[in-house]
Amino acid sequence: MANPSLLILPGDGIGPEVMTEVRRVIDWFGAKRGLNFDVSEDLVGGAAYDKYGTPLHDDTMAKAQEVDAVLLGAVGGPKYDVLDFSVKPERGLLRLRKEMDLYANLRPAQCFDALADFSSLKKDVVAGLDIMIVRELTSGIYFGEPRGIYPDNEGGRVGVNTQRYTTDEIRRVARSAFELAKRRNNKVCSMEKANVMESGVLWREEVQWVHDNEYPEVELSHMYADNGAMQLVRNPKQFDVIVTDNLFGDILSDCAAMLTGSLGMLPSASLGAPMANGRPKALYEPVHGSAPDIAGQGKANPIACILSFAMALRYSFDRGDEAARLEATVEKVLADGVRTADLMGPEGGVPVSTSGMGDAILAAL
Amino acid sequence: MANPSLLILPGDGIGPEVMTEVRRVIDWFGAKRGLNFDVSEDLVGGAAYDKYGTPLHDDTMAKAQEVDAVLLGAVGGPKYDVLDFSVKPERGLLRLRKEMDLYANLRPAQCFDALADFSSLKKDVVAGLDIMIVRELTSGIYFGEPRGIYPDNEGGRVGVNTQRYTTDEIRRVARSAFELAKRRNNKVCSMEKANVMESGVLWREEVQWVHDNEYPEVELSHMYADNGAMQLVRNPKQFDVIVTDNLFGDILSDCAAMLTGSLGMLPSASLGAPMANGRPKALYEPVHGSAPDIAGQGKANPIACILSFAMALRYSFDRGDEAARLEATVEKVLADGVRTADLMGPEGGVPVSTSGMGDAILAAL
Ligand SMILES: CC(C)[C@H](C(=O)O)[C@@H](O)C(=O)O
Ligand SMILES: CC(C)[C@H](C(=O)O)[C@@H](O)C(=O)O
Repeated sequence: MANPSLLILPGDGIGPEVMTEVRRVIDWFGAKRGLNFDVSEDLVGGAAYDKYGTPLHDDTMAKAQEVDAVLLGAVGGPKYDVLDFSVKPERGLLRLRKEMDLYANLRPAQCFDALADFSSLKKDVVAGLDIMIVRELTSGIYFGEPRGIYPDNEGGRVGVNTQRYTTDEIRRVARSAFELAKRRNNKVCSMEKANVMESGVLWREEVQWVHDNEYPEVELSHMYADNGAMQLVRNPKQFDVIVTDNLFGDILSDCAAMLTGSLGMLPSASLGAPMANGRPKALYEPVHGSAPDIAGQGKANPIACILSFAMALRYSFDRGDEAARLEATVEKVLADGVRTADLMGPEGGVPVSTSGMGDAILAAL
Repeated sequence: MANPSLLILPGDGIGPEVMTEVRRVIDWFGAKRGLNFDVSEDLVGGAAYDKYGTPLHDDTMAKAQEVDAVLLGAVGGPKYDVLDFSVKPERGLLRLRKEMDLYANLRPAQCFDALADFSSLKKDVVAGLDIMIVRELTSGIYFGEPRGIYPDNEGGRVGVNTQRYTTDEIRRVARSAFELAKRRNNKVCSMEKANVMESGVLWREEVQWVHDNEYPEVELSHMYADNGAMQLVRNPKQFDVIVTDNLFGDILSDCAAMLTGSLGMLPSASLGAPMANGRPKALYEPVHGSAPDIAGQGKANPIACILSFAMALRYSFDRGDEAARLEATVEKVLADGVRTADLMGPEGGVPVSTSGMGDAILAAL
């Protein structure tokens, strides 16, 4: 049988250097665990724009549609701020999400024991934190039409975007959330602004419908998104799985990520419908951005990207056992005090570079 | 000369009981400081719906347009969850904001020394925190058309809302932010999602325009709203004034409010254009909601509503001196350990009811 295929898109900023470490980890799984992948690599974001004048070449898009999973580093940088909206680096990522129809974005917000002191929150509020945010990723205001900037009637301009959700779009991401909850603590909290937005009213009703008709055994609650932001700060451990729309999910998952104090640690998975081989369309990427300020200096923390590969093992390749091995190894390396610059707290530790962290993880595997 | 006029709308839940304490404070300023107001009272939210079948009667709306300032308690409650969207308690508040054209919502997030331990964040992260969020309040996705729930083509439904901002709408709220910054630490950070939304691109360009043409001496930066949520959690003291749109402002200001750990303390002012007498159209309300779970039990903290009256003294009646007196008095009462239930931490304090807190503040004034 052919090896499963992986398309690697390092992207911009620290993307390439963290991806170098991920490739070493992938190679290790091939050499030591017999898990071989056919790996190809291509450009996305500013890197693609620099070469092709577009943040995602059609050929790359076609490849992404064919492989078993895509692994992405990060996109964007100040160099591209002047570009027209339509060719900004982010458009490459958004096109991948949309055309692969990756509707369920899984963003775990987990606090690592060895790093709990690192959060700006009190230790007892975040120690042991383990929540999963499921963000709708292919619709809502990110993609709704009409959109654009037009002249208005007073000689000025008007900027327009459209939030738009259908029954099917809401139900399918709700199902992803309920399925995850069943394998966790059986609780889903859905967030919207149903008190202000009709699209939020529909969201609430359809999530409730999926619950009542398909997952009555899972505990479901609803919360306004503004209160959700408050509750995440006040007492994040009250949550298990949170399901929310594309825009609220963008903000709330970043808020949740920062609670853990270690953004450089957090992976994400974006999943679509099953392909012919039964695997979901999938793209894995760290939650952190391209961090142009430290790019190319060997300072970046590769763990978020490495743990994104662990999510690929679990969700694309049904190797939860190997994913758990990799995650446990990362925890051990942290417990041993190995620290990239972003993880260096007042208690100190063993300072390492990007590749030094890769070395430590490979040694511990 | 006639006394300035105040319309009091206690609303729902704990609204009436906290407003009772505010009225005692207002009376004190009349008796002891010669600051007399013509006070009238009316219904809003669920309370108005119960009596009139609408969350804001036209007569109340007309009164609000005529007075010098409106003071509102809170609206909403589970009892009204079943109501149609168009008559939900929140619609009363939104109608006031829209028809009075209260475009600049000022939400201070301040950490009171006596309560710094109360935050879920580490003390050094929040002690001394003093930021001002300026939220656009009359436009954006809260009010844009088209909106509603319609049948879709697959036998399901589609929920639609429209984000819409014009040059004028953005410029006027940006001016409010720059004016405030001049009287504070001279820094404005504008937040949007210009990497994803065209309305965000326009937002960024127009804020920059106001800066370059009218306030070049104020320091301006731009941040994506998801990063804004992160930075608020990571290091909120980096900010002075934040300006953002209606929806981002709703979420980010609640996030910022919760950083302080004392939501029951935070007031807000919603300001519009100057009236004939030079005073801005204005509505003042606490940031907290109607808290139906504790309503009617004398447990609510009246301070946020009392400090909203302090904001009225400052922004509507040009009595910054008396506002500062009232604010200092509240700080003193807190320093003395007087605590409503929501402020009671592990170090204890003198437990008081809603009216007990009113007593303490009046005694200290
Ligand atoms: C880079 C950007 C387009 C993206 C988003 O807004 O979705 C990012 O913030 C994210 O959360 O993945
Ligand atoms: C009650 C609700 C309509 C309101 C809003 O969403 O604006 C509230 O959350 C607020 O922030 O004042």
